Amino acid sequence: MTKRQVTPHRPIYPTPAGLVTSVDADGRPNIITLGEVFNISIARPVILGIAIRKERYSHQLISETREYVVNLPTQEIAEQVWYCGSVSGRSVDKFSGSGLTPVPAQRVRPPLIAECPINLECKVLGVQEIGDHDLFLGEVVVQHADEGILDQAGRISVGKLCAFAFVNGEFWTLGRKIPRT
Amino acid sequence: MTKRQVTPHRPIYPTPAGLVTSVDADGRPNIITLGEVFNISIARPVILGIAIRKERYSHQLISETREYVVNLPTQEIAEQVWYCGSVSGRSVDKFSGSGLTPVPAQRVRPPLIAECPINLECKVLGVQEIGDHDLFLGEVVVQHADEGILDQAGRISVGKLCAFAFVNGEFWTLGRKIPRT
Repeated sequence: MTKRQVTPHRPIYPTPAGLVTSVDADGRPNIITLGEVFNISIARPVILGIAIRKERYSHQLISETREYVVNLPTQEIAEQVWYCGSVSGRSVDKFSGSGLTPVPAQRVRPPLIAECPINLECKVLGVQEIGDHDLFLGEVVVQHADEGILDQAGRISVGKLCAFAFVNGEFWTLGRKIPRT
Repeated sequence: MTKRQVTPHRPIYPTPAGLVTSVDADGRPNIITLGEVFNISIARPVILGIAIRKERYSHQLISETREYVVNLPTQEIAEQVWYCGSVSGRSVDKFSGSGLTPVPAQRVRPPLIAECPINLECKVLGVQEIGDHDLFLGEVVVQHADEGILDQAGRISVGKLCAFAFVNGEFWTLGRKIPRT
């Protein structure tokens, strides 16, 4: 196969989209759609990364309050995911606009999104400028999962997640598990 | 839907698996399978993140040479992806063991993997300890793409990638594009 040089632009996919909630100083919540969220430290402790441009409203809110919640969406709310990525929380209440339902979190002020089966409450450990985005490292202090996605042993069942991936500006469902030969 | 607290462990999915190549001081190449690679800065410049445990051989190699190549796999080489994640380059030549084909890179010493349709040559900008993994930030200095995945305008065609996602210890194909209503 002949290879050709191309100009890189967000070259890695498929990536896990996330709805990230934050609050302003008065507790008013906002939602930002991110094309990906990163697992960096996977167990001890669990630390996630999210990259946000400086000009985004959520960048300001999370910088001030140093808390956020990562909510993993399902195919059923794909339209709301697009919506939350296409308007600014500076001018719109995205919970009202999307119809998504805020639920109080346990250890942080930003709300969980009820329609998302996995919710990760995060406290910011640090922020750093990396090229055209700023990376917010967040320690997961509480994880919530819908009862409906858990198997009998209480583990998350991938087949029940209705997850989707972000691929070059598009959302794609998952297909089938690749068997191991 | 009732929510339940669960113990977090690598909670974000689906994630983009990658085969990352590196070399030792004598130029002998190695391959590590990672469950995910991160787009952090998406355009100016393009900066990727990879998280590797300190005890992995690739951690040592990339720390010493400060170069790596991210190769995005296809479904056709899923078995080789498993293989490269299940043995150590300290004791095995993974190119020989997997049958994958090294191709010289242009600006770094680690080779491209011919069977991967996207190859990203990276130079390390920095390394930082984040919990149980170390994060290597790498600037993409050259991107290669197989001619066969490009459309007539020279853009990467997602449908031709045969990409797959890493989901909770399993590999899953992509299904269908979710239409926008």
